Amino acid sequence: MKIAIDAMGGDHAPKEIVLGAMKAVAEFKDIQITLVGDEAKIKEYLTNDDRINIVHTEEVILPTDEPVRAVRRKKNSSMVLAAQLVTDGQADACISAGNTGALMATGLFVVGRIEGIERPALSPTLPTIGGEGFLLLDVGANVDAKPDHLLQYAIMGSIYSEKVRGIENPRVGLLNIGTEEKKGNELAKNTFELLQKANLNFIGNVEARDLLEGAADVVVTDGFTGNMVLKTIEGTAMSVFKMLKSALTSSFKSKVAAAVLKPDLVQLKSKMDYSEYGGAGLFGLKAPVIKAHGSSDANALYSAVRQTRNMIEHNVSQTIKEAVENASVN
Amino acid sequence: MKIAIDAMGGDHAPKEIVLGAMKAVAEFKDIQITLVGDEAKIKEYLTNDDRINIVHTEEVILPTDEPVRAVRRKKNSSMVLAAQLVTDGQADACISAGNTGALMATGLFVVGRIEGIERPALSPTLPTIGGEGFLLLDVGANVDAKPDHLLQYAIMGSIYSEKVRGIENPRVGLLNIGTEEKKGNELAKNTFELLQKANLNFIGNVEARDLLEGAADVVVTDGFTGNMVLKTIEGTAMSVFKMLKSALTSSFKSKVAAAVLKPDLVQLKSKMDYSEYGGAGLFGLKAPVIKAHGSSDANALYSAVRQTRNMIEHNVSQTIKEAVENASVN
Repeated sequence: MKIAIDAMGGDHAPKEIVLGAMKAVAEFKDIQITLVGDEAKIKEYLTNDDRINIVHTEEVILPTDEPVRAVRRKKNSSMVLAAQLVTDGQADACISAGNTGALMATGLFVVGRIEGIERPALSPTLPTIGGEGFLLLDVGANVDAKPDHLLQYAIMGSIYSEKVRGIENPRVGLLNIGTEEKKGNELAKNTFELLQKANLNFIGNVEARDLLEGAADVVVTDGFTGNMVLKTIEGTAMSVFKMLKSALTSSFKSKVAAAVLKPDLVQLKSKMDYSEYGGAGLFGLKAPVIKAHGSSDANALYSAVRQTRNMIEHNVSQTIKEAVENASVN
Repeated sequence: MKIAIDAMGGDHAPKEIVLGAMKAVAEFKDIQITLVGDEAKIKEYLTNDDRINIVHTEEVILPTDEPVRAVRRKKNSSMVLAAQLVTDGQADACISAGNTGALMATGLFVVGRIEGIERPALSPTLPTIGGEGFLLLDVGANVDAKPDHLLQYAIMGSIYSEKVRGIENPRVGLLNIGTEEKKGNELAKNTFELLQKANLNFIGNVEARDLLEGAADVVVTDGFTGNMVLKTIEGTAMSVFKMLKSALTSSFKSKVAAAVLKPDLVQLKSKMDYSEYGGAGLFGLKAPVIKAHGSSDANALYSAVRQTRNMIEHNVSQTIKEAVENASVN
């Protein structure tokens, strides 16, 4: 299978992107990677081009670019060209760690929606205490969502969790302000009814407080709320670790004790690191488009390739297409 | 000033409520407290009834009661009677650590809205790394909010922060998915325009990721989103501490080191404990109604009384009334 990667997107591009790509081809013998970006800069780090080719371009979409405008104007940017390879049939999927909004626009305009999918969803897998993780969707592709959209998110999330994450009969929860049935805003109440009737393992409402405890395998919400929850988890974990760090270096005594605990604390921090689970899938497009975290290092990029490979292998886009067709026939 | 307290609400009622009330009257010589609840049970813990009287009732609203129905049917419950004392002019404000939804309904039906306020807002003060805290509103009084409501939240929050928390010219932020101007869902975009025109220190959009860093003094959002953010902060902090605890007890070596660090860690945890900042105010009612945290101990209840006293002293309800009148004249 063939995977196109935007070599210029992300805080540590192209170095970590190239290193991650080399790690991935070394591990997975059935993949071929195309790195899209500045050839000279890529070659600085590409020590082994086994099953890796380069498509050269100098244009780049910046993190500060206005997404839709950037995608329309920068047609030769590394991100847009990577997606174009998918559309042209020269790649089965694409990955970028660049501007999230621009990648969503690229997915929509260049790769295109699956017929019947009203809105794609941006879907990261987030950490849980137990280590199994959960899929949250949508986290910002569609900020004014309708109940129908959330139903489609639930279907897409279930398929992904089952096919790619290997979770049998994944538990689908609706993010809400309480677990009782009639809770929530209009959107939540109307979505609840739709999910109850759907052919899914719908376990009802789940509260934000219980997400990291593993309340559900697939958690659906509108893109505005999902974005808030995602960023609140990130911000709170970061703040607690920051306070922890300052507490552990407050005196000589605590510095000594902290040194003893360092391996445990590093492990703890990595447990909260969701780049381990790969990137965020942009579900509902004709082919897999994966958003790797902006701060991706080689390992995170490698995880994103592994995840993308799984999505191609298990034919996730095709399965979503069929499930949506069946759902609308019924 | 006179404060009515629901002695039967909360996980540790009536014991911690009674202890907190005694602590408060010992500290503040200008307050008189009425404890509403089961007289015999209250007297078990009331070792000093100086400036504390009891209004006896055996009826209680349970945490599991459906809020609106409970308030309508249990007219002699400790919560409803505490609010009734406010309406009857026998108390200046009331506090409960009981069923949040029921207290919101009690505030609305028994105490009543300030004329001109469309929807009251539930408004806790949450911790920040620097220790200054920020006010988040609304966290669930009104899950389907309109831009006008959020504007009123901003006005009420500014008044509270200035009068009660002593913050000069408080920075008002709109919770959004990005800091740039045209970001967000319809509600956020339309609210942005209103806030820009208002006579407030509006600093623009703030992201959920930056809240605990002190991005703004007053953060406004709809009740659904606010509830999610509040519970995500709680859940994430709790989960990180849980993982930390398990990491620190994973081996003999780490247990020894953890023992050395214990005072630092306890202090860290208390920094995240927002009961220190008092309860959540239900802003927009004719008199202060304060929701103390369900798990309130004597100290948390004491903090809530201190906060309530400040709200009475600084005439917050009256100031909100005048500000809303002025805003609608303009």
